[in-house]
Amino acid sequence: MKKKSRFLQTPVEPFAVEGGLTADQVLLRMERISFQGRNLATAHRIWQKMLEDDVTIFLGMAGALSAGGLRLIVAHLITNRYVDCLVSTGANLYHDLHETRGQRHYLGSPHADDAALADERIDRVYDTFASEEEFIGNDNWIADFAATLESRPHTTREFLHLLGGHLWNTTGRDGILTAAYRANVPIFCPAIADSSIGMGLSQARQKKPGAGFIDVIGDIVESANLIIRRPRTASVVLGGGTPKNFINQASVQAEYYSDQVGGHRFAIQIVTDVPHFGGASGSSLEEAQSWGKLASDAARVSVQADVTIALPILASALATTVPPILARRKAPVFTLASRAMTIDGRSVPNDHFEEVNEPAV
Amino acid sequence: MKKKSRFLQTPVEPFAVEGGLTADQVLLRMERISFQGRNLATAHRIWQKMLEDDVTIFLGMAGALSAGGLRLIVAHLITNRYVDCLVSTGANLYHDLHETRGQRHYLGSPHADDAALADERIDRVYDTFASEEEFIGNDNWIADFAATLESRPHTTREFLHLLGGHLWNTTGRDGILTAAYRANVPIFCPAIADSSIGMGLSQARQKKPGAGFIDVIGDIVESANLIIRRPRTASVVLGGGTPKNFINQASVQAEYYSDQVGGHRFAIQIVTDVPHFGGASGSSLEEAQSWGKLASDAARVSVQADVTIALPILASALATTVPPILARRKAPVFTLASRAMTIDGRSVPNDHFEEVNEPAV
Amino acid sequence: MKKKSRFLQTPVEPFAVEGGLTADQVLLRMERISFQGRNLATAHRIWQKMLEDDVTIFLGMAGALSAGGLRLIVAHLITNRYVDCLVSTGANLYHDLHETRGQRHYLGSPHADDAALADERIDRVYDTFASEEEFIGNDNWIADFAATLESRPHTTREFLHLLGGHLWNTTGRDGILTAAYRANVPIFCPAIADSSIGMGLSQARQKKPGAGFIDVIGDIVESANLIIRRPRTASVVLGGGTPKNFINQASVQAEYYSDQVGGHRFAIQIVTDVPHFGGASGSSLEEAQSWGKLASDAARVSVQADVTIALPILASALATTVPPILARRKAPVFTLASRAMTIDGRSVPNDHFEEVNEPAV
Amino acid sequence: MKKKSRFLQTPVEPFAVEGGLTADQVLLRMERISFQGRNLATAHRIWQKMLEDDVTIFLGMAGALSAGGLRLIVAHLITNRYVDCLVSTGANLYHDLHETRGQRHYLGSPHADDAALADERIDRVYDTFASEEEFIGNDNWIADFAATLESRPHTTREFLHLLGGHLWNTTGRDGILTAAYRANVPIFCPAIADSSIGMGLSQARQKKPGAGFIDVIGDIVESANLIIRRPRTASVVLGGGTPKNFINQASVQAEYYSDQVGGHRFAIQIVTDVPHFGGASGSSLEEAQSWGKLASDAARVSVQADVTIALPILASALATTVPPILARRKAPVFTLASRAMTIDGRSVPNDHFEEVNEPAV
Repeated sequence: MKKKSRFLQTPVEPFAVEGGLTADQVLLRMERISFQGRNLATAHRIWQKMLEDDVTIFLGMAGALSAGGLRLIVAHLITNRYVDCLVSTGANLYHDLHETRGQRHYLGSPHADDAALADERIDRVYDTFASEEEFIGNDNWIADFAATLESRPHTTREFLHLLGGHLWNTTGRDGILTAAYRANVPIFCPAIADSSIGMGLSQARQKKPGAGFIDVIGDIVESANLIIRRPRTASVVLGGGTPKNFINQASVQAEYYSDQVGGHRFAIQIVTDVPHFGGASGSSLEEAQSWGKLASDAARVSVQADVTIALPILASALATTVPPILARRKAPVFTLASRAMTIDGRSVPNDHFEEVNEPAV
Repeated sequence: MKKKSRFLQTPVEPFAVEGGLTADQVLLRMERISFQGRNLATAHRIWQKMLEDDVTIFLGMAGALSAGGLRLIVAHLITNRYVDCLVSTGANLYHDLHETRGQRHYLGSPHADDAALADERIDRVYDTFASEEEFIGNDNWIADFAATLESRPHTTREFLHLLGGHLWNTTGRDGILTAAYRANVPIFCPAIADSSIGMGLSQARQKKPGAGFIDVIGDIVESANLIIRRPRTASVVLGGGTPKNFINQASVQAEYYSDQVGGHRFAIQIVTDVPHFGGASGSSLEEAQSWGKLASDAARVSVQADVTIALPILASALATTVPPILARRKAPVFTLASRAMTIDGRSVPNDHFEEVNEPAV
Repeated sequence: MKKKSRFLQTPVEPFAVEGGLTADQVLLRMERISFQGRNLATAHRIWQKMLEDDVTIFLGMAGALSAGGLRLIVAHLITNRYVDCLVSTGANLYHDLHETRGQRHYLGSPHADDAALADERIDRVYDTFASEEEFIGNDNWIADFAATLESRPHTTREFLHLLGGHLWNTTGRDGILTAAYRANVPIFCPAIADSSIGMGLSQARQKKPGAGFIDVIGDIVESANLIIRRPRTASVVLGGGTPKNFINQASVQAEYYSDQVGGHRFAIQIVTDVPHFGGASGSSLEEAQSWGKLASDAARVSVQADVTIALPILASALATTVPPILARRKAPVFTLASRAMTIDGRSVPNDHFEEVNEPAV
Repeated sequence: MKKKSRFLQTPVEPFAVEGGLTADQVLLRMERISFQGRNLATAHRIWQKMLEDDVTIFLGMAGALSAGGLRLIVAHLITNRYVDCLVSTGANLYHDLHETRGQRHYLGSPHADDAALADERIDRVYDTFASEEEFIGNDNWIADFAATLESRPHTTREFLHLLGGHLWNTTGRDGILTAAYRANVPIFCPAIADSSIGMGLSQARQKKPGAGFIDVIGDIVESANLIIRRPRTASVVLGGGTPKNFINQASVQAEYYSDQVGGHRFAIQIVTDVPHFGGASGSSLEEAQSWGKLASDAARVSVQADVTIALPILASALATTVPPILARRKAPVFTLASRAMTIDGRSVPNDHFEEVNEPAV
């Protein structure tokens, strides 16, 4: 009898419909279908492996995920340490703060009359609405808080930890910033100047001369030193954007000073951008290997899907499958309340890189 | 106190993560988030409403769904009468037949070496492989069967019913064609000439002069008469393509001959194409209203997602939520084994349209 | 001095802006930039090579190109024999006929109120409007013509040639159908049943019993025999859809009967669909090689762009660069007015495949 | 005779092919076709109107445009004052600096073996390659320069002007940074921390304690004050990303302090992202109106296209059509070499907003 080709080893297994399946059972049955369904199921599998391994897990988030109803999923991932470090756009932190302060976003329509919305001072994010007046209140609240800080540069990591603390003390409500504050999980926001958090900081200068100094270059140093201190890492990217590159850049920068760093060991990205226009958001995980952002043998998967579909399912599945793994996981321990942070008791400076390599003579 | 804007009525409700949620519970929690997640949850809700109402439900399928592991979902939808009439590309029926005949598709990689695959005669569909030799066997099998048919034109609807019957008698296995045969659900395939089913039919002419005559224009007449006979309809479209337009065209054509037809009452589409390039696959359901393809008050939702992600979740949720509705649903009853089909005991001709309207004097 | 890596051979040459550049000069300067700009420039280069070589050039067109203002470009490509055979969706031929009959499409907006449009019986194609009443007139015109034909099956190729002739005789106006009629260029329309051309044909049955019989399976046989007769081919695909696959299927089917066929020697596709959802429209030209649709050494390029941007530029450039090549090109010569067509004086049957291979004993 | 519908006013005018057409003539003929072709032609028309009007024109650029061969187009737009202020990602400035320093990017393939590239330390950007070693040299060069600066915070605007000056003095070569330096056009880089420019700045701290302090919050203040000083503005966005939002945020922030600001009067965006996933890059210009980012009567167009296709054509057309307009245009005049910039002789502070509105009592 004729031998099967080496290419024809594992058959596609058609998805069998059944009532009452839990999210993880659905994903399990999607592991042997094709295209993005298979990829989403693979993401579930790889995230489990990350948590079993001893890696620092970075989570990047871009896109209007907080306004769009996913902020408590991210808070859940932080609180339960599915992830160890968040890199976010400013907008996601701002819309999180908006709701943690007791305000809401609203169901709207992409076909709304934008002139009418403008008249009523309603801001639209595709199919979601919010009150501009409440946003102005947030900006002011951030400005007031920023004006109370010491007149010295703060990395976004330090500032956001303090902001999270203030938010928790004021509101006692769950959210991304408050969860990260309470769980001592660092948040970096490299593009803070391109967000309403940044606008709030800029308005602090109107209240107090010299207020609102943010040391984003210190964030670069700090994030690289984090990896130098603990070289095995993983990357979970939601939506691309600046967080995706910042997480990769930290690894590349760290490797420059330490041979023990060799790119992320695991990588998941859930994006809607595509590779063929050359932009970083859509770039493939294979391309990332050419740069050394990813280890050559990294377990990896790229899922082409809207995060508002993929993440609720993935998080629901993980919440069922990973609690035993989380229970025995040794996550890195941070202190975040000072100008310089620590990881597992060791300092993580932001004023110089911790060189591990012997200097070339 | 200030009144809320009329635009700010229903707040976004952040998705709350919990272990053990079933697919339908996940979708329920996605109804008040944003973007495509909300849309997928809305699709679940609208499908339920369709089944509660008294409508003929058309299902369109395009894209490599059968090769990609979704054929048993479609079979399930047919067998349990979540849908009443299938419009498909030829490829989906062909890859269904391939597996029903006991052959498989295989997990592959989009990064495979296509020259090496060609050398081993392996055909690739993105990340999925299959044996060209087995495909040639299928073509031949179809040609042999087609050569046994009466030497007269067959609509695709009649041909595919006979093909499904032959497949069921030969294999006794589940699949789309066999499920439709057993459930007496009609299948139309307007672009049959652009598929391997068509290639098989063309090869029948090599075996028997005059074989392989397909009356695709008869399919147009028949599908419109179906709607004239039973004017309330719904449309579920997976992936766009020719099935999407064929289902809409049937409604428009029917309305030409009957004032009782007024466009689909419900519409769900799950597509990855976008409206702004002008193609039919990505066209919006709003645009469909300008053509009268959709009733002006139709419940409708467009989900921008890969069907291999959206359908397993949606079908799993429906399998939990709709059995009681299905139990009391009165689906239309077809007879399909002849040149002319019937619906609910009334003839559905393919040689002329059943005019209901009074001729204008 | 250190040697450059083998990967770093040809530098990107930044595009230098200059006033007065012609379209071909712009494309020439785009050959050494990156991403889709480079690909569009490469398409220009490959089309030139096709025309220099001795190949039958198939042009596939899908998407609303005729309604969108590109029909006279396609007519130009046909008249001047940049291409030898057109495979089209029915819609593109229908909207061509609409304008050739002296009616127009109109500039509209994607934000139009579709209910208001429906009230005025205006049909919308994204940002383009047309009169439904005029469309009904077209359907009737097609039905009347179809009712005059002999009561026997016609391939779409034969029917469309006759339709083009009737249109030319009636209107004397330029367009795709009339240009193809006058230049004796065959047009195939495998999904004719999914279009208003098909609807017109179906209405012919209301006028004359037995009218409107289209032999789409004959089109498969005929298109494959075309390639068996003249095995060197090229493929230019605009927008994917059924034409893309039909052109490829003809090559695969031809190869089954003739070893001299070895896949297209050149391939250009301009598409907006992407490979990663598994659909045929977005499938890569590399994948096509695994199926043997494309020769392993074929010059090929895939351009990710809207055809309404890419084609006006590409055609304008070609109109400047290729006239000398066209002048010496020996294009295949067809006769199309009968049930069976000929190419270069040899018959191209639609009732059986011309087997060239020795039958295996 | 029946009156035409109000919706059917301006017919689509099919594109007429002709040899020898210049880029602007091609775009002129695209103004009355449909879909993205029409939009690109409209962008040409709107850019002309912007230049005729008295507005400050912001140009945003994201995506790998410099690596991809478009940097000299952007330099041309700056030098000839098609634009007045650039907002860029760090990567575009970095890859510009890379070439201005005499190094190159190289034509590569998206199908390259990334492990082999990693072995040779070649970094891939889709179909484009570059030497990692040269990149390390750039980082070092930037670090060395940054270490020579005064030990005080610099806005990105000030830093990039100084960097451009140093680059010009060192190389005498054209590029984005050097063109902006020579033309006194300000560059903002809100996400500088997410780029290799930022990495170079971070390495300056290794060379000199306290080096590399960037005041990104100052950039927010400065950009808003620019608009307060000169409230009529226009926005041209290439590729979305942080520049798109930063330009809009400047307008919103400015309006908070000055009633004379009312959103951009003109807006062009060329993007590949789509609105329906909720991200800022793909958000529509209509949505921007709800936020007041855009005047309600702003001339605007969104082009869905890869910038590497759209910009070479658009810039070539403009280079033919706008020189007379540029000759009489009164562009704003900046001084940029100090901690605080000026516009038209008036100071543009970064330590407080210039309030124009009467304080509410």
